[in-house]
Amino acid sequence: MKKNILVIPGDGIGPEVTTWGKAALEKIAEIFGHEFVFEEALMGHAAIEVTGEPLPDETLESARKSDAILFGAIGHAKYDNDPSLKVRPEQGLLKIRKELGLFANLRPILLFDELLQASSIKPEILRGTDILFFRELTGDVYFGEKTRSEDRNTASDLMIYHRYEVERIAHKAYQAAQQRNKRLCSVDKANVLESSRLWRETVQEIAKQYPDVETEHMFIDNAAMQLIKNPKKFDVVLTANLFGDILTDEASQIAGSMGMLASASVGESTGFFEPIHGSAHDIAGKDLANPLASILSAALMLEIGFGLKEEAKLLVDTIDQVLKEGFRTHDIADQSTNRFKVLGTAEMGKLVLK
Amino acid sequence: MKKNILVIPGDGIGPEVTTWGKAALEKIAEIFGHEFVFEEALMGHAAIEVTGEPLPDETLESARKSDAILFGAIGHAKYDNDPSLKVRPEQGLLKIRKELGLFANLRPILLFDELLQASSIKPEILRGTDILFFRELTGDVYFGEKTRSEDRNTASDLMIYHRYEVERIAHKAYQAAQQRNKRLCSVDKANVLESSRLWRETVQEIAKQYPDVETEHMFIDNAAMQLIKNPKKFDVVLTANLFGDILTDEASQIAGSMGMLASASVGESTGFFEPIHGSAHDIAGKDLANPLASILSAALMLEIGFGLKEEAKLLVDTIDQVLKEGFRTHDIADQSTNRFKVLGTAEMGKLVLK
Ligand SMILES: CC(C)[C@H](C(=O)O)[C@@H](O)C(=O)O
Ligand SMILES: CC(C)[C@H](C(=O)O)[C@@H](O)C(=O)O
Repeated sequence: MKKNILVIPGDGIGPEVTTWGKAALEKIAEIFGHEFVFEEALMGHAAIEVTGEPLPDETLESARKSDAILFGAIGHAKYDNDPSLKVRPEQGLLKIRKELGLFANLRPILLFDELLQASSIKPEILRGTDILFFRELTGDVYFGEKTRSEDRNTASDLMIYHRYEVERIAHKAYQAAQQRNKRLCSVDKANVLESSRLWRETVQEIAKQYPDVETEHMFIDNAAMQLIKNPKKFDVVLTANLFGDILTDEASQIAGSMGMLASASVGESTGFFEPIHGSAHDIAGKDLANPLASILSAALMLEIGFGLKEEAKLLVDTIDQVLKEGFRTHDIADQSTNRFKVLGTAEMGKLVLK
Repeated sequence: MKKNILVIPGDGIGPEVTTWGKAALEKIAEIFGHEFVFEEALMGHAAIEVTGEPLPDETLESARKSDAILFGAIGHAKYDNDPSLKVRPEQGLLKIRKELGLFANLRPILLFDELLQASSIKPEILRGTDILFFRELTGDVYFGEKTRSEDRNTASDLMIYHRYEVERIAHKAYQAAQQRNKRLCSVDKANVLESSRLWRETVQEIAKQYPDVETEHMFIDNAAMQLIKNPKKFDVVLTANLFGDILTDEASQIAGSMGMLASASVGESTGFFEPIHGSAHDIAGKDLANPLASILSAALMLEIGFGLKEEAKLLVDTIDQVLKEGFRTHDIADQSTNRFKVLGTAEMGKLVLK
């Protein structure tokens, strides 16, 4: 199989983890006889530094031409500390999501048995958890009109949904639920928000087309609580952009660490694969980051992007093996025992490849 | 001390738990020689049934005249299942918050040692946690303009903040932090939302007036994760209406159960005290609800509303004692051992009063 892959390392720990996601793809190509052609492009703070733009036209062009994109992370402390800056790294990520029509963000909560202990949640609560999040990614308050009054004392963002936006992701989520445990939980705030009432109405309609799937509607506040109280009760979770952002980060504690979770953004064409962790500037360049989420992003690309199930499984199994042998990065190492061999980013990356 | 207290039982389990919050206040009056005069009023589904309105004028009038309000819960499955209904219970709660100018919602995460085991989070992660949330309560996407297009295919809610709204609650939160561990974490989504950028800018300004308090700014997605990863790192958490709704429900797992958390809404005049749990229609009327959050709401009324610290402490200590003796309601009983004596709502209420 021949594929063109665009690698966008981005900011913070992005470059150091993406190195290993890319290396994993190269290794897979070698083992299975595929041809993966890589190109690299700038986005975020890294792009602003060079071109003044968070998403240069060139990057967008390359993205459109590629078969899949492997992304690292975005964001920089400079902008976080100064909310008045007009050009911001995250605009690059939001724009590429919109431009490529990546309306469905899939975030599987993959639980490695070996990491049950790494979570702050009790192992007996976690064991057996298997959740697949469908986060809507190109609508909501992320993309609604933003305003700032002239005196700068009032600011707003429009939380807005169109029925077709809810429909298309709901179909995807229901179809996935049919292949899984046939339960779907749609999360909204329909007791307060009109956009959530549209969301709920629409999901209720779509649900009728999937009578084999059991549907539940939950308010976001309750869902944030249930997710840690009893994660096993969830199968597919379908939710809006903002709520999905919050719930999936929270859910990373189920997997032991953010450093273990990958996501796939799909929609109209090219798929976009990235760790769910952020740029983590505080540990950037210190060889402390966990490269496994990037390697798992590569696995998602193989599976969801290219339909290469066996290749994806090899990566996941290898990570499982490495964890079984007691190797850990800092974020997933239990510091209170010395059962674990704690590795830096590069060592962990090399080990998985081996 | 003479005080007029308005009791609004509301919907679902509201009435059955509020009975015990009110009884606790009566008992305190008796012991300490205060005169608490009670009046009762309708709100929510209960009010719609009788008057057609979720917040009858009469209730609002009584509220304005009272010194404090003890509230139960709001909401009903009927409305949750039918998003198209125009008149909804929650409108009553939102309106009374707005009308009474209750802009600051304080949610202390009170951790009873005895309940460390009741949480899904590991006791060693929880031990020592002590968080006070300041949730903004009369702004944000809760109160911004709502629209629905004529074809009903597009719906929106305006997420909006004015600088003064952020300032007034920030001052309250900083003042509380000065009396506590002098750390304040402000939670927003300033990397995406303009209203959050206003929020962050404003908090940065106010922070300068409280140099003895250490300020941190955190994105909501990260905060939802950190809260369960390492709850001890938080002291005062300051956040917007929607984010506060989500984070505090999530934080209820720290306290072992939603059934243990109370909140105080304060602002321009009369204080409003309520459990953070909802109406829980599924268990309403079954004697399964936990009355402790309502009794703790009464304690907050005594402390924050009336400045009666000793009286409040007596209630909290009594609950502590009852838990130490092994009594539990269903939500906080560990079903896997028989160390606990599991009580119904009424039995638990009576026990605390005794
Ligand atoms: C960086 C940020 C804009 C982004 C988001 O909020 O979508 C990130 O948190 C994510 O979840 O991918
Ligand atoms: C019932 C609902 C409107 C309310 C809210 O979202 O504010 C509740 O969840 C709360 O937290 O008090």
